Amino acid sequence: MAAISTSEEATLYESLAAWLQGEIENGTLGAHARVPSVRRMSKQRNVSIATVVQAYRLLEDRGWLEARPQSGYFVQARARPAAAPVPRMPPATHKPCDVGVCSLVASVMSEARDPRLIPLGAGCPTGELYPHDKLARFLAAAARQDSRCLTHYQIAHTDPELATQLARRALHDGYHLDPSEIIVTNGCVEALNIALRASARPGDVVVIESPTYFTFLEIIESLGLRAIEVPSHPVDGISVEALELALENNPVKACVLVPNAQNPLGCTLSDEKKKRIAALCADYGVAIIEDDINGDLFFGESRPRPIRAFATDGDVITCSSFSKSLAPGLRVGWMAGGRCTERLRNLRSISSISSPAVVQRGVAAFLASGGYDHHLRTIRRTYASQVRTIGCAVIEHFPEGVRLSRPMGGFFLWVEMPPGIDTLQMHEDALREGISIAPGAVFSARQRFKGNLRLNCAVPWSEKIERAIATLGQLARRQMRRAG
Amino acid sequence: MAAISTSEEATLYESLAAWLQGEIENGTLGAHARVPSVRRMSKQRNVSIATVVQAYRLLEDRGWLEARPQSGYFVQARARPAAAPVPRMPPATHKPCDVGVCSLVASVMSEARDPRLIPLGAGCPTGELYPHDKLARFLAAAARQDSRCLTHYQIAHTDPELATQLARRALHDGYHLDPSEIIVTNGCVEALNIALRASARPGDVVVIESPTYFTFLEIIESLGLRAIEVPSHPVDGISVEALELALENNPVKACVLVPNAQNPLGCTLSDEKKKRIAALCADYGVAIIEDDINGDLFFGESRPRPIRAFATDGDVITCSSFSKSLAPGLRVGWMAGGRCTERLRNLRSISSISSPAVVQRGVAAFLASGGYDHHLRTIRRTYASQVRTIGCAVIEHFPEGVRLSRPMGGFFLWVEMPPGIDTLQMHEDALREGISIAPGAVFSARQRFKGNLRLNCAVPWSEKIERAIATLGQLARRQMRRAG
Repeated sequence: MAAISTSEEATLYESLAAWLQGEIENGTLGAHARVPSVRRMSKQRNVSIATVVQAYRLLEDRGWLEARPQSGYFVQARARPAAAPVPRMPPATHKPCDVGVCSLVASVMSEARDPRLIPLGAGCPTGELYPHDKLARFLAAAARQDSRCLTHYQIAHTDPELATQLARRALHDGYHLDPSEIIVTNGCVEALNIALRASARPGDVVVIESPTYFTFLEIIESLGLRAIEVPSHPVDGISVEALELALENNPVKACVLVPNAQNPLGCTLSDEKKKRIAALCADYGVAIIEDDINGDLFFGESRPRPIRAFATDGDVITCSSFSKSLAPGLRVGWMAGGRCTERLRNLRSISSISSPAVVQRGVAAFLASGGYDHHLRTIRRTYASQVRTIGCAVIEHFPEGVRLSRPMGGFFLWVEMPPGIDTLQMHEDALREGISIAPGAVFSARQRFKGNLRLNCAVPWSEKIERAIATLGQLARRQMRRAG
Repeated sequence: MAAISTSEEATLYESLAAWLQGEIENGTLGAHARVPSVRRMSKQRNVSIATVVQAYRLLEDRGWLEARPQSGYFVQARARPAAAPVPRMPPATHKPCDVGVCSLVASVMSEARDPRLIPLGAGCPTGELYPHDKLARFLAAAARQDSRCLTHYQIAHTDPELATQLARRALHDGYHLDPSEIIVTNGCVEALNIALRASARPGDVVVIESPTYFTFLEIIESLGLRAIEVPSHPVDGISVEALELALENNPVKACVLVPNAQNPLGCTLSDEKKKRIAALCADYGVAIIEDDINGDLFFGESRPRPIRAFATDGDVITCSSFSKSLAPGLRVGWMAGGRCTERLRNLRSISSISSPAVVQRGVAAFLASGGYDHHLRTIRRTYASQVRTIGCAVIEHFPEGVRLSRPMGGFFLWVEMPPGIDTLQMHEDALREGISIAPGAVFSARQRFKGNLRLNCAVPWSEKIERAIATLGQLARRQMRRAG
């Protein structure tokens, strides 16, 4: 009962926020405009004060409003990324293809990770915002309290306290995880490797989104699998119709999806869509492998649930980690596979036996201390603001005709350049200017998205970043002049 | 020049030790007998005092002699495992086969890892002998000194200080490792996964030893590779002639070998054989993937070198870790691949990005502190003694006709039971008695070795262990009675 009323409330303030955001996007409420007071809005819309406050806070988190003490809420100066249309969705293809992007991804992304560059390419959070000293204390305490865990083989892969903490968080977030099905891995990437090895044999076909996270492509290629790309819309996410066609026409073994704050699009699937996808895959007997690594980095008021929350039947393997949200340097990931658990457990052993128990215990102790939610609130707000600010800078500095995603979480912006611009070329030009970007071609097995790029917004806004965005705009214009 | 003289010296004391060991094995020197004094032996054999001392120490390490203060060296009470012949080598087969042992290995070894059992099955060192408190201090210091490494993505996989320490140890051990080619992994098992993914595509054929470590079989199966089993002799190791035939008749992509203290056999390849194998694989353009995890656990006086030390050409990917020798719970492994380095580095990213920097730094600091060699001396002596003592107990308690390996390092004994005994059945019977063993069937893709078993000797000798060995002997006799 409590869950239903919470969810109804959520709908109420979220729809109020969506309406108000529309008023900002269409210009009714311009930059710096004062929005109606909480009391007035409550009367106007016939909703509770609490609902209005929640809606305003949501828009504040998303970077549309700012609260000024004693004065109320105002529209943010740069609150107009909607001035740019969203990037277009690729056409659907229903034929699987071999994946051969490893060498491209390796060369492009290893360049992009060069620490001397302005890091708009790789998705590396800025560690400064993260609680390193507190984590160090918990880790040191875990090492001292039971130093024998350093020199004993771990019979179980998974620290029971960490599994309990994860299951508790899931409960809080509105879905069920059984501690006994949780398998801790070395980051989410290892979990994804294991999930794919469990679900498909070499030569088998798996569905990926288009665009998709390039590391999925690398894993798929290195395991000798083939891929069907199903188009995903920058706002609505994967096309369920195209997915159904793909499943109907191919012996698909698994769908690899990012349900929340998709990489690179930033979109979060609606609950309705998650339900439809879960049902569809169950019908076709296809496993869902979902990467929920950005789920905790939502820009809304409540954490979006993974697809597993909507699956009544079928195999859903949920993979996630703390590498984006808490401790990028500790490599603590996890997976939960329901009825596949036994197979996943074996493959987890075959993959690398286990993760260091002391590190798992350090993270578990941090979670138990209650500091994680506080930390998340800070970085979510920061990322939302940085995504929006960099989006505004893109609109300001990039050539006319640029298209821009509307991230609902995470820290990436997906940009479609005006026609005629080759972002692999831009990537090379940008390297010479000391800037990294992630060119669109690495997000597709078919090397689509040659005119797109992904920008990492997990870097604090500064003049240097603004200059980098301006430089990227100039590089694009230079290409257009050369071509035109 | 220095290297040659060291190696000549080595030959001298090793041949003296081998001769003396023969005298013990053939009964000339019985249990408790006093061996000639160092001075006398030096005169008799016309070698230096130092050489005799080294030879006696070697035999002490191997468990043949014991030093009594002020009295000299004596033959150990139980110094007669040679009373049993060595297990037989399987016949050669030159056809590759699919590998389908995962489910058997998973069920058998997950039972064998049950911590309530007397652990003669899985190869888990007894952590008590390991420097847990010192490691905990180094780890805590690493976390505190640079807590930001916990919350920053590691651009490089490998801590430079750890790479330097590894390269220094290699230099000391008589071979070359370039710090820049070292890639740190989550244990040796991840390194082996990466090496196989780099060397072979699904459907490709790789050579494995027969018997071989069951985890190799699981990795090979899960990657969709096929295997040719080349017989390995319990003393001499892999048959080079059979290897050559296999390479001649099949498009082999890689050979997966354990050059030092092979698992399960315990044998170490001679330098001559390592050289021949390196040359042979280079001729056929076949990569060598060597697992040197037991290299530091040798029973002799000097560390045997990996095959890479003898390769003048060709691809040798050396994999190892500290999981057997220093910190079973920290999962710090590494690999070095010479000219494959770039490809291995990419696959290392795809596999799980990187290992926690803080853990790498903790281990590097431990190595730099100089405590590793001291620790190794202790556990090597302990393992040599335990292997020998358990071997003697096997001869005492197992039915007549049992055959026994002569481990040159590590902590495993490979046992061949008298004809008619099924060790899978013994495994099940033993579980009911609260004892785990590793049945021979899991060491072969063809499920050979149904009459063999592997015993873990990394457990302190005690009456409980002796009773367990006696129980195993009774279970074997019971089977023989039932059959006979």
